[in-house]
Amino acid sequence: MLDERLQRTAEAVKSVGCDWAILTNFDSICYALGHVSPIETGLSPFAGGPTTAFVRADGACGLVAPNVESAASQASWADEKIIYEGFAYDHRADPVGNYAAALTELKVRLGIGGVLGAEPETFQARLAASLGAEQTVDITEPLQRARATKTAKEKELMRRSAMAAAKGQEAFYEQARPGRTELDIFAEIRAAMENFAGERTAVAGDFLSGKARTAGGVGWPISRMVNLNDPLISDLAPRVSGYWGDSCASSVLGEPGDGYRKLFNTAKRALEHALEIMRPGITAADVDGELRRSVGAAGYSYPHHSGHSIGASVHEWPRLTPYERAPLQEGMFIMVEPAAYDPNIGGVRLEWMIEITATGCRPAAPFEHRASIAA
Amino acid sequence: MLDERLQRTAEAVKSVGCDWAILTNFDSICYALGHVSPIETGLSPFAGGPTTAFVRADGACGLVAPNVESAASQASWADEKIIYEGFAYDHRADPVGNYAAALTELKVRLGIGGVLGAEPETFQARLAASLGAEQTVDITEPLQRARATKTAKEKELMRRSAMAAAKGQEAFYEQARPGRTELDIFAEIRAAMENFAGERTAVAGDFLSGKARTAGGVGWPISRMVNLNDPLISDLAPRVSGYWGDSCASSVLGEPGDGYRKLFNTAKRALEHALEIMRPGITAADVDGELRRSVGAAGYSYPHHSGHSIGASVHEWPRLTPYERAPLQEGMFIMVEPAAYDPNIGGVRLEWMIEITATGCRPAAPFEHRASIAA
Repeated sequence: MLDERLQRTAEAVKSVGCDWAILTNFDSICYALGHVSPIETGLSPFAGGPTTAFVRADGACGLVAPNVESAASQASWADEKIIYEGFAYDHRADPVGNYAAALTELKVRLGIGGVLGAEPETFQARLAASLGAEQTVDITEPLQRARATKTAKEKELMRRSAMAAAKGQEAFYEQARPGRTELDIFAEIRAAMENFAGERTAVAGDFLSGKARTAGGVGWPISRMVNLNDPLISDLAPRVSGYWGDSCASSVLGEPGDGYRKLFNTAKRALEHALEIMRPGITAADVDGELRRSVGAAGYSYPHHSGHSIGASVHEWPRLTPYERAPLQEGMFIMVEPAAYDPNIGGVRLEWMIEITATGCRPAAPFEHRASIAA
Repeated sequence: MLDERLQRTAEAVKSVGCDWAILTNFDSICYALGHVSPIETGLSPFAGGPTTAFVRADGACGLVAPNVESAASQASWADEKIIYEGFAYDHRADPVGNYAAALTELKVRLGIGGVLGAEPETFQARLAASLGAEQTVDITEPLQRARATKTAKEKELMRRSAMAAAKGQEAFYEQARPGRTELDIFAEIRAAMENFAGERTAVAGDFLSGKARTAGGVGWPISRMVNLNDPLISDLAPRVSGYWGDSCASSVLGEPGDGYRKLFNTAKRALEHALEIMRPGITAADVDGELRRSVGAAGYSYPHHSGHSIGASVHEWPRLTPYERAPLQEGMFIMVEPAAYDPNIGGVRLEWMIEITATGCRPAAPFEHRASIAA
């Protein structure tokens, strides 16, 4: 039996009149075929092009990957796998040529042809030439929609990624101390998430300390020393087994002042309100609007979306934005991240991963937001 | 005056008869234009395609990057920069369309045309279509050759990256303890490198413990608990300000046995021999051959290259392999990594970054290899 993700991918391919989909985004390939490319160090110098997957409208499928990803390819359920030589040391390898040759071979083996779908964000010229695919259909959106609700297997993966993020936030509350740098604290957090995952995990998000940085809301950790009474933002998105978790905690190191408490309570109230109203049928725009109104009522606003779906990509469709009319559905996993920023005080953003159930919603892992960390 | 890297890029473009180069590898763009794309979390969901640079044969240049990389673009010395909208929250953005439109606009502004050079490993179909670049010249190799010796500015950057790797190895010797997991120790190492760099750094390499894992030689850290008398391999390649450092230390946690000492001394002797023979004029193949002979004389061998150049890419040309006839030149930065593996004992790989000088070579940062770590 086909993995339900492969089946949904095949249905998406069929729905737009394609015979085959050519997948070149690492997240689409993870979704459709279970091949998790390592992403933390960029494209390998021993790859001739992006790892590439092919899915036919009936679910037949294949994978082309460089030999440096052969371990990752073991877990893939692709029918046909061609692992081409990228790395060699005793003779001059030709990764680009080998990649093209592997594509040509897979084309013959699988009989790839007819109407081809592709992801233009990552679709290569060399790939187009190898396959005679000058004309392709953009399948980005149908694939996004197919992935919006999670399969049973994905729900397990998502809860595990949510738990990894939760472990990171526990470490944040434990490890934030005056005299440590943002990078020191972030390293402890990362270790907690990686130990939970049992693997190195790519981590997206932000880590910020101090009034100015937290009021700005975004940025990777730097060597800034954290001081007593600093506001902190810990936005952690770990990628575990190809699936992303996410979360954002905000806290003061020491005793929060009245101004900070107001920011914190504003964001917290909005997040709690989201938990009350999110259920199948409500639109993304309505949730976004309710959150903005809630935060706005306290005199604040935030210059970003109110949240986003998550899965094999760290940001998925639908997002919680004013323009997105899609209704929420059971099985969606949605990040909700209301915030309040004040340049004179700092910033507070509180975010958790929410699973939409048949009648409402629930956090995907236990979580807790604390306004202060004992210094 | 043009940055010397831009000048060398322009000369490489000219040398193969191209009017313009289109750069799509993040490392080429860092080299030519000083725009350092963050790579740790894969392609941004808010990018419409790869960040792209254009360099004319006389050094005129331009950059197209998504708004999520606008901070990085501040440091770029590109004449023309177009930062397109990828992220937006109050209306539906079209990253792929905006990327294509930015390319078309830059084409007009700069007058891009004539014979176009490209990097096929990452050259996109959409990019080809936007520019009418169906026919391109592969400029990968001329660019690699232009980058083989480092400019004065790059030498500073390389020594700093080498020092980051050295700080990581100091942390390795300090933090490896029985009862910690590989991931725990790796997190401490990473924190040391990131604190030195003052930024998050992508880290390539390997971290391995125990007989079986070190004898295999490659792999990212896992949650394996490190035990007394375990052999360890700490191969650390941090990316600092767009430039990679690298190094490999191997050590036993406790008292090394005779077998391990033999492995260690074999690799150490080969590395020391490399420091004696590396100088302008000797070929990469000859260095490789000498190292393999040195290790072979002790009854061992290693199934990988003897080393590789390094810079804005973690692996650059020339590599130390049996087939590479290129002579070393002053200003090259070359990793040397002889090794000895024995499935009954474990593996030892000792690697350092070596700068080729006018008359010989020297380590790019202070380093020390220790056969044992006090448990």
